[in-house]
Amino acid sequence: MTARVLEGAPIAIQIRQELHDRVADFTRHAGRPPGLGIVLVGDDAASEIYVQNKLKAAKETGLRADFHHLPSTVSLAEVLATVERLNLSDAHDGILVQDPLPPAIASGTRAIFDTNVPEKDIDAFHPVNVGRLSQGRAVLAACTPSGVIEMLVRSGIRLEGSRAVVIGRSDIVGKPMALLLLHRDATVTICHSKTRDLPSVSAEADIIVAAVGRPGFVRRSFVKPGATVVDVGINRITDLAMARALLGADSPRLGVLERRGSLVVGDVHPEVAEVAGALTPVPGGVGPLTIAMLLKNTLLAAEARLRAASGTAV
Amino acid sequence: MTARVLEGAPIAIQIRQELHDRVADFTRHAGRPPGLGIVLVGDDAASEIYVQNKLKAAKETGLRADFHHLPSTVSLAEVLATVERLNLSDAHDGILVQDPLPPAIASGTRAIFDTNVPEKDIDAFHPVNVGRLSQGRAVLAACTPSGVIEMLVRSGIRLEGSRAVVIGRSDIVGKPMALLLLHRDATVTICHSKTRDLPSVSAEADIIVAAVGRPGFVRRSFVKPGATVVDVGINRITDLAMARALLGADSPRLGVLERRGSLVVGDVHPEVAEVAGALTPVPGGVGPLTIAMLLKNTLLAAEARLRAASGTAV
Repeated sequence: MTARVLEGAPIAIQIRQELHDRVADFTRHAGRPPGLGIVLVGDDAASEIYVQNKLKAAKETGLRADFHHLPSTVSLAEVLATVERLNLSDAHDGILVQDPLPPAIASGTRAIFDTNVPEKDIDAFHPVNVGRLSQGRAVLAACTPSGVIEMLVRSGIRLEGSRAVVIGRSDIVGKPMALLLLHRDATVTICHSKTRDLPSVSAEADIIVAAVGRPGFVRRSFVKPGATVVDVGINRITDLAMARALLGADSPRLGVLERRGSLVVGDVHPEVAEVAGALTPVPGGVGPLTIAMLLKNTLLAAEARLRAASGTAV
Repeated sequence: MTARVLEGAPIAIQIRQELHDRVADFTRHAGRPPGLGIVLVGDDAASEIYVQNKLKAAKETGLRADFHHLPSTVSLAEVLATVERLNLSDAHDGILVQDPLPPAIASGTRAIFDTNVPEKDIDAFHPVNVGRLSQGRAVLAACTPSGVIEMLVRSGIRLEGSRAVVIGRSDIVGKPMALLLLHRDATVTICHSKTRDLPSVSAEADIIVAAVGRPGFVRRSFVKPGATVVDVGINRITDLAMARALLGADSPRLGVLERRGSLVVGDVHPEVAEVAGALTPVPGGVGPLTIAMLLKNTLLAAEARLRAASGTAV
């Protein structure tokens, strides 16, 4: 048995096409496009690639997208001031501060996310949006978990009545993922580093979402035959021996590591493909959907702000 | 085997004694006691008993407790105005609007809870407090789930690494209960009406929390021998035949039903006592702890307001 591969790109293209039409409607109606402001601090190469991908995708979808690139020497107060300006800007509906911040101001990350007004908090990290998600009345939900739901639903994976296991309990993926699956009527178990006999617990699931940040962590023994496995891990590895052990000595992906010096792998071991019913690859699985949901959240925020401004009940 | 009975009253007394001392400290320091404002709308007899119990407990603990009893004919705007006055009052640290509201304004329940400022929201129903709970940085957490944690911890039930099943996914009990157990390092599964084969899922658990609102719903088959079962149900039954079927024809509690016309039973069937390792009774289990946690939240809110007023970092 070989798992059906759930590719993110075709679904992301479909969502972005739908968004394109709604963005055009919004722009006609509001006299301006939905606006996205992205703040990047410092020169982390990976972060800059992520941000450029987001800016490009936003522009292709018809959004206004502004890039605020601050030097790594900037103070926390200056970052907060940038967020405050975007909070007050009529042209901006969504604000994103790229994580991680430089070490000198990393302790202020939570303060920055809390400063972002909930109405423009397209990452849905603000407690108001987290609380509204828990209460099943969110306008904005965290992008990666929302993308996973889109992936599963549009791939015809049944959620209602299924048993789902989320491995990892981060605020950004694990916890919102569990809530979104719960609201889709799955029976949800959240596992983590303190879970006893994790493979057995995981093997009860019809749907496994792995979000632990450990290369190849989910092995064959974690997976009930035929289960759907969603790999949210984005682990950059640089060690050739490790890559070889994980991917197999004859993997064509080893060439990527040799050429570029690093390789992105997921939390799910390749051997899982032999037992799972469906599996999202890394890269190319949920990644493209995360960006699509970021664009969608910007549009949803813009629509909600327009309704609020025109006095219509939300 | 007969389950150890986890009585709430002795633990509630212990907590209230601890609070009494902290309340005295606060009062000395602040020059006023922590203040609680309770709003009751209409004449529901059960609600009035609950409110009177809360007022009495608050006063015994040294809190100021004010009762705002509005007639059932009051408008939603008038209830909101009462909450707004308490929001602005320096003397009040905690605000509680007793649920349920009369049918004519029940649709405004959510609006009332959202109007309550998060700093005084001792029920922790406001999205900011729900979000902060999810993020593991709540000052105020929902009272009943917090009381369950106190019950388990003070009874020596190990949570870390345990498997916990929460039956019911309400905003008031089920979801915050799952998060609090998760933050205590339990592996948590949330079950609900769409869960397939609920008895089997429940029987995996070391700890079961039942919060479904259905008399005697949790049967012997739901419970792994030796598991701890927490019964959060408060179901008022008036039917003698039903009470007899549930409690047994020779139960001394049937006399209560005959004398008073109703009887409170939990979500857990009495037969569970034969298989569980520990079990909270109804009444007399988690109920007293819910009130103790309400008092504690009022104190915590008062302390946080005092810190904020004196400019100390919280």
